Amino acid sequence: MPDLPAPLPPGSTIGVLGGGQLGRMLAMAAARLGLRTHIYCPEDNCTAAQVADAVTIAAYDDKAALKAFAAQVDVVTYEFENVPTDTASMLAQDVPVRPGARALSVAQDRLTEKNFMQGLGVATAPFADVTDVGSLTTALADIGTPAILKTRRLGYDGKGQMRIDDTTQASTAWEAVNKQPSILEGFVDFEAEISVIVARGLDGTTAAYDPARNDHENHILSLSTVPSGYPETVEAKARTLAEKIAAELDYVGVMGVELFVASGTRKLIVNEIAPRVHNSGHWTLEGCTVSQFEQHMRAVAGWPLGSPQRHSDATMTNLIGSDADDWQQLATEPNAGLHLYGKGEARPGRKMGHITRISPKTSA
Amino acid sequence: MPDLPAPLPPGSTIGVLGGGQLGRMLAMAAARLGLRTHIYCPEDNCTAAQVADAVTIAAYDDKAALKAFAAQVDVVTYEFENVPTDTASMLAQDVPVRPGARALSVAQDRLTEKNFMQGLGVATAPFADVTDVGSLTTALADIGTPAILKTRRLGYDGKGQMRIDDTTQASTAWEAVNKQPSILEGFVDFEAEISVIVARGLDGTTAAYDPARNDHENHILSLSTVPSGYPETVEAKARTLAEKIAAELDYVGVMGVELFVASGTRKLIVNEIAPRVHNSGHWTLEGCTVSQFEQHMRAVAGWPLGSPQRHSDATMTNLIGSDADDWQQLATEPNAGLHLYGKGEARPGRKMGHITRISPKTSA
Repeated sequence: MPDLPAPLPPGSTIGVLGGGQLGRMLAMAAARLGLRTHIYCPEDNCTAAQVADAVTIAAYDDKAALKAFAAQVDVVTYEFENVPTDTASMLAQDVPVRPGARALSVAQDRLTEKNFMQGLGVATAPFADVTDVGSLTTALADIGTPAILKTRRLGYDGKGQMRIDDTTQASTAWEAVNKQPSILEGFVDFEAEISVIVARGLDGTTAAYDPARNDHENHILSLSTVPSGYPETVEAKARTLAEKIAAELDYVGVMGVELFVASGTRKLIVNEIAPRVHNSGHWTLEGCTVSQFEQHMRAVAGWPLGSPQRHSDATMTNLIGSDADDWQQLATEPNAGLHLYGKGEARPGRKMGHITRISPKTSA
Repeated sequence: MPDLPAPLPPGSTIGVLGGGQLGRMLAMAAARLGLRTHIYCPEDNCTAAQVADAVTIAAYDDKAALKAFAAQVDVVTYEFENVPTDTASMLAQDVPVRPGARALSVAQDRLTEKNFMQGLGVATAPFADVTDVGSLTTALADIGTPAILKTRRLGYDGKGQMRIDDTTQASTAWEAVNKQPSILEGFVDFEAEISVIVARGLDGTTAAYDPARNDHENHILSLSTVPSGYPETVEAKARTLAEKIAAELDYVGVMGVELFVASGTRKLIVNEIAPRVHNSGHWTLEGCTVSQFEQHMRAVAGWPLGSPQRHSDATMTNLIGSDADDWQQLATEPNAGLHLYGKGEARPGRKMGHITRISPKTSA
């Protein structure tokens, strides 16, 4: 095994592609360790810039800007999975990019992701490749209805998806996804969604936080609860699965793995992975001494991972759109950490902040 | 009672005078609430600038810079007690300065501070005003030896102090403090130093964290331990004292109150107050959901105070000078939060970071 690169000493700079709330919380976590953050994002006034040591505002295909950015940072990471692969490879010529190209390519494409899971022997929803109305019709016949047509790329929070209840809807659905390469996913009969936030260090060690149980509203995460309420046997399986996926991807950093718990059998079925810190891991800021954000920056900087141990039970509630208008009331709650993301306009569906409520730990 | 100003909404900017680690941690805490920070400091490359939204590098007597700074912020606070009073009053013409002038004037001058405490009926060490060798000789006769000669202004971490064991040392001691206006303090026979971090909001509500027991090395805080080990009766008295001082100063923000616990009697004697967040309150970052830094920014912004409730026991150990070189080892400790301040050179005696170790709460 080749020698590992030395950890980046305090004072080093971590470049982050993306300037949203995840980049913001990453920058704050890095600062706690004496590490600097340089945010790269296309939007002026991005929220992460308010807390970062340096900011580059430029397009993801601006070669000169990327070159200059790479020269000013010691390592590059990202806060969203849809970083163009060209951007990542261009940067990788000059500076380490963590997590690496494989994680991005698997996570960016639902078909590649499903095939990867299948290759690993990990259960997923039944799925089929869809390239036109013909293949969609065949897929519907195989998988049955109801099913969901999802574009292979660039979908999140329910975007780029269409539910199909009847085989006659094939061509309507195909139009609805703009005839983009897609997959058809069969419905999974699940009783809950849980997620594991797993970290993997440069040396291959892994650390998984306790799984959260997640509730959604309008396809957007609304509530994460830890502990999940599932017995340790189920939780241990979930952690092991996440660690296996991270190892197979030779992953460096924090990854979110969303899992369905099948009704009755409690079999675990991977929904999707996110090669980044994850909304369902925000509770770790209050529930653990080392949050998912710090954990990610540790991994990316080649530092030892922190213990993922939880000192409290926690629920994390997203503040979507006008929910955040209640900040004065929310700020008075005891045993709660209020987070507002410094975004200007509270558009409907926009994640404006979150609040984590903790209570004494009830289970090991 | 006049109407209170409305709380500053998320997105507002808090100006902070001073760019050290306290300013850094204040900026990070403000960011959690969606508030922006503008740091004003004379030194280039100040550590707080790495995490702040904006920075002004200028001298504290640069009138044009202060004017421009005031125009860009919604409120001004500070991270050190030796802000020149002229600077504070100049800013106060344009923008609220919190805490206000009275807190600064009391905390900046040991004689004023002692007289203030005496006026409040709060016990202090015996003291006398010293303006020359003659008054020092008289003071030594009154107070006895050993005693400590301390300059009235600009002393911290044992600087500007001289222990006197014998009345014949009067003129040597007077030379040692550069003939600066001073006070002579008698020794207090104490079994421990404890401190209370108290917050007072714009509406006059107060919130005090559990007292910490503090241990020093070479006059610099080395360890803070919570709970203090003293019975609730003693701790309640300490909290009440701190709240009384804050109220009397019409204080807005977080204040550190250092108290000696007299040997045997356990009577509380005020050592000094710091009109700012305090090193002995760093444990609140891991031990509470709302840290002293967030609490200060809430108060200054006119927000409701957070609950000072503690969810864990904690010890906070300062990393002084080369202590911080052990960061790789310290980063592996479970149940610990490591903080490095982003400072360049680890000079002896320089505060480079701290580590807070938590454990389940053992007392209410």
